Amino acid sequence: MLFQGFEAQHDHTPAYTEQLGAALGQTVRVRMRTTLPVTDVALKVVQVGEIETLPAQEITGPAGFSGEGRWFEAHLPLHDQRVRYAWQLNLTDDHLNLTALGLHRSRRGFRSWFQYLAGHVAPEWAWRSVFYQIFPDRFRNGDPTNDVQTGEYIYEGRPVEHVAWDHPVDAHGDIHGHYGGDLNGVTQALPYLKDLGITGLWLTPIFESPSNHRYDITDYRRVDPHLGGEDAWDELVQEADQAGIRIVLDGVFNHMGNENALFRAALESEDAPERSLFTWRDEPGKPPYHSFFDVPTLPKIDYRNESAVEEFFSGESSVVRHWLRQGAAGWRLDVAHMIGAGGTDTDNLPLHRALKTAARQERPDAYVFGERFYDPEHALDGQGEDGTMNYHGFGLPVMQWLAGATYFQEPSRISGPEVAEIMWDAYHALAPEVALSMFNLLESHDIGRALYRLGNDRTRFLSAFTLLVAYPGVPCTYYGTEIGLSQSRPGNMPWCREPMPWDESQWDLELHSRVKALIAVRRQTAALHSGNLRFLHAEPDALAFLREITGADGQTSRVIALASRRTDAHEVSLTLPAGEWRDALTGEAMAGGAAILNATGGRLLLQH
Amino acid sequence: MLFQGFEAQHDHTPAYTEQLGAALGQTVRVRMRTTLPVTDVALKVVQVGEIETLPAQEITGPAGFSGEGRWFEAHLPLHDQRVRYAWQLNLTDDHLNLTALGLHRSRRGFRSWFQYLAGHVAPEWAWRSVFYQIFPDRFRNGDPTNDVQTGEYIYEGRPVEHVAWDHPVDAHGDIHGHYGGDLNGVTQALPYLKDLGITGLWLTPIFESPSNHRYDITDYRRVDPHLGGEDAWDELVQEADQAGIRIVLDGVFNHMGNENALFRAALESEDAPERSLFTWRDEPGKPPYHSFFDVPTLPKIDYRNESAVEEFFSGESSVVRHWLRQGAAGWRLDVAHMIGAGGTDTDNLPLHRALKTAARQERPDAYVFGERFYDPEHALDGQGEDGTMNYHGFGLPVMQWLAGATYFQEPSRISGPEVAEIMWDAYHALAPEVALSMFNLLESHDIGRALYRLGNDRTRFLSAFTLLVAYPGVPCTYYGTEIGLSQSRPGNMPWCREPMPWDESQWDLELHSRVKALIAVRRQTAALHSGNLRFLHAEPDALAFLREITGADGQTSRVIALASRRTDAHEVSLTLPAGEWRDALTGEAMAGGAAILNATGGRLLLQH
Repeated sequence: MLFQGFEAQHDHTPAYTEQLGAALGQTVRVRMRTTLPVTDVALKVVQVGEIETLPAQEITGPAGFSGEGRWFEAHLPLHDQRVRYAWQLNLTDDHLNLTALGLHRSRRGFRSWFQYLAGHVAPEWAWRSVFYQIFPDRFRNGDPTNDVQTGEYIYEGRPVEHVAWDHPVDAHGDIHGHYGGDLNGVTQALPYLKDLGITGLWLTPIFESPSNHRYDITDYRRVDPHLGGEDAWDELVQEADQAGIRIVLDGVFNHMGNENALFRAALESEDAPERSLFTWRDEPGKPPYHSFFDVPTLPKIDYRNESAVEEFFSGESSVVRHWLRQGAAGWRLDVAHMIGAGGTDTDNLPLHRALKTAARQERPDAYVFGERFYDPEHALDGQGEDGTMNYHGFGLPVMQWLAGATYFQEPSRISGPEVAEIMWDAYHALAPEVALSMFNLLESHDIGRALYRLGNDRTRFLSAFTLLVAYPGVPCTYYGTEIGLSQSRPGNMPWCREPMPWDESQWDLELHSRVKALIAVRRQTAALHSGNLRFLHAEPDALAFLREITGADGQTSRVIALASRRTDAHEVSLTLPAGEWRDALTGEAMAGGAAILNATGGRLLLQH
Repeated sequence: MLFQGFEAQHDHTPAYTEQLGAALGQTVRVRMRTTLPVTDVALKVVQVGEIETLPAQEITGPAGFSGEGRWFEAHLPLHDQRVRYAWQLNLTDDHLNLTALGLHRSRRGFRSWFQYLAGHVAPEWAWRSVFYQIFPDRFRNGDPTNDVQTGEYIYEGRPVEHVAWDHPVDAHGDIHGHYGGDLNGVTQALPYLKDLGITGLWLTPIFESPSNHRYDITDYRRVDPHLGGEDAWDELVQEADQAGIRIVLDGVFNHMGNENALFRAALESEDAPERSLFTWRDEPGKPPYHSFFDVPTLPKIDYRNESAVEEFFSGESSVVRHWLRQGAAGWRLDVAHMIGAGGTDTDNLPLHRALKTAARQERPDAYVFGERFYDPEHALDGQGEDGTMNYHGFGLPVMQWLAGATYFQEPSRISGPEVAEIMWDAYHALAPEVALSMFNLLESHDIGRALYRLGNDRTRFLSAFTLLVAYPGVPCTYYGTEIGLSQSRPGNMPWCREPMPWDESQWDLELHSRVKALIAVRRQTAALHSGNLRFLHAEPDALAFLREITGADGQTSRVIALASRRTDAHEVSLTLPAGEWRDALTGEAMAGGAAILNATGGRLLLQH
């Protein structure tokens, strides 16, 4: 149910759930508040495939709670890693079930029941962070002496080229054109990033690789010397730490580069122990080994082989552990859905569990999230990745709606209600800690830049950015977007990888200040870090949702995000929950109840 | 999307899907028809976690197809046991996805994509069958000499009792009261059942057991002598076969009776090999072994022990195999969701796969379906049970709507649209062969009788029965319902287990003839056996859905089912697809297009 009423409330925030992540075998107090004339309330819990009905007692609500309704409490037994539960509300003449999908008269499917993840530790620092994605070759050239030189080496039969910073990306330089950005440049830009409000960086791969994108890794334990090598990494980590910025690295664990020593050894001899790290085959027209989309330079790693699992994930000196020891705060996992055994994705989830277990042993708050470009729900049981890149449930539908086209430039007449529906469908099926750990983005090094897709229209972009900072999950903005970096022509990669201009005269300073202000609101507002979500409104050209935390003391903090895809003034009628509201950017005050608000360019309204 | 438009169509029937169950590794031609002005159509297939886009070609539609639209065909590669796919429709100014959920502008979650089950063999005979559930002690006493006599033995410290056939069920006789029904009686009633149109029987347990319900089995390889023993079984199988009736047995594989020799041996000695068939524990207030809901007489079988798997499922002479050899046509699996290892439901799905594999080796068309009282979606991947008892997606919501109360007699104001929504949500997420193998029922030996729950109102009951015979899945009616057997008081078991009256003067002959007529329509109508489903209409008091097959020649057969929960004349406005329609029972003809129909008591409209 897209629009839930306010007649009954339960969520993961402290007034309603005593504690998140309590251990298996413990019992947690959960509470439900309702304004309905209930005669009796019970908690239903799925246990060994059965629904067990447990009593709920009426209790006095938290002292500081100013809203309406009676409170009920029950004890939720944690007999399993993921416990599904729902509330049952009995009335004199009716019978209701409250699940994550809202109030219903039927017992909904288990997918929509509330979930409790026993013993789950979420990377809560990431919820409070604002990330910035850097494609190292294109962000900033801090040390021209380490640049790739034209003809320095040959890759796939073609010499690499050094490209001037102000030269627009062209197809010729797709893989072979190196602009010279490096980690030294990132370190130099830390004050700039800190000023913008950034507290997390996601760096696309930094390890030794022949291409400019570095997803074809030659050595997973060396920082590419063209990015400044280990020294530049160490300096960056230290300086970033000083600036309150954590760094997530890009783990390319599905495949490696064909110049990797492991693969060279495997090719050299049929008897080499490295042979079994790959899946050999004999299929006409394909490389004699499984590889990423049959690209010969990207041989796929076969995790049937325990030594592959040890080398990358679990071993005492695995790649995953090594870089967490060297200061990385987590891993973004490239094509996480492909990782598997025998040339397929077999054992994908157990492998992700092994990876996360190792990461957490090394760094208890490591943030691990996969690139899953498609519906990731099946992978998000809390045991593997903390979350995934949220293309499916956020970035793709939001941008399709605002741009009127898919990322493949197919025109689309998708409407606000359908966008809200797909977002809600994806969100409500996740455990709350997982939903809050989703990595939200509008754009990336793989798909067209948001600003460009929106016709370089700042107003519509700010609607998108408003949704980004307000939606459950970890917001990430792509380098250069904040100053108006766009594209020279339509399409996805490589056109979205233009170098960042450092000449401020080329910057959209108005955009920069608006983005900075939205980032500041995100960082200051707890309800945006860990609040519950409910949609309030959807019409073809506008969307609104509510984020809400109710503390153990009953104090409620709320944020409403409102966005329009129109560029003209667009007045939207909606009902604000009771109480005083103020616009987070203009400070304008308004009362709860029926309101007509201009949604153009996005609005954030705060309460408390 | 509850109500799909007719702008695009793809389903599992022959015009749209070349073949069901083609083998892994093969390619199947699939087709899509649309009236939209598409410029281009593609097939999207999930492969190794990626979405692969394959071309679709426009083709000439089947010669006999009289509807509108252009046809497109693509080749679906079967690289996995369950392949998910969707159609992509490009228009000049729009971009649509067709999934099992209908046409959308967003790429829906994978749950709603079409599914193809490679190598899947469905028990198609069951789709054409109408089942009748018999609780043997209460259906017919064919041989009074084999009756349980009062005081014949003691069970749980209390002597059993013989109860007169005309004595209403009382709490006293819940477990200990035996009425004397037997398999001889079932054999005698075969002409009656055949006349009613029945072609399948589900017998609740028939093996040697001390209680009247026989879910506490003492010997899985002996037919209870009080039911006539093996001789009566053999005679029943032979005579039923002559009458065109197949028999499904009730497999109680989660737990056994505490008088079972295996359990007695396990109790006798700590060293007995039978010890490991159970899960021993030491918990205050509970039996020293895991048991069904901690009932001491029902020790739970532990399938960690391979010899348990062999004894019941996989072994050369397993219980599952034995009775299929003795003429059973399949198994209904008691509390299928509980079966597992270590006192839990661990390994539930692999165990069901082992069970079905053995059953199919023994009888290639064995029908295997589980009792899963709750949402069974996660178990229905095509590899374990063929389907499950459809309480979640059919029986419970339909009866809750018609009765205005749950089966626990909690009042409910559930409305038609919500009922249609939960039915559709449960249906659309299943592969078509699984949806068609669901075992649909309104009532059973476990929950209140439908007629009683509907205030013994024949009109509302006929609405329910109309939905039962028309809904995708295998319809099953409970003994006695057809002649008006009801209850003496509210509640579930044992009140729903009254003996069948054989004095025809007590029968509701009008009801019998209406039920018989509906069964006849079901049996004669292919679209009800294997047709696609879409909902056409829902209002608080009425529902309508369409079943449809399009043959390889393009000929389309359609049925519309319409039902109301009102007892007064209730006119419903809906739009009938084009063409001529006729009422299956009255023969009344009507034209396609806007129609106003009285839905009271249910209607079935046919085309072709």
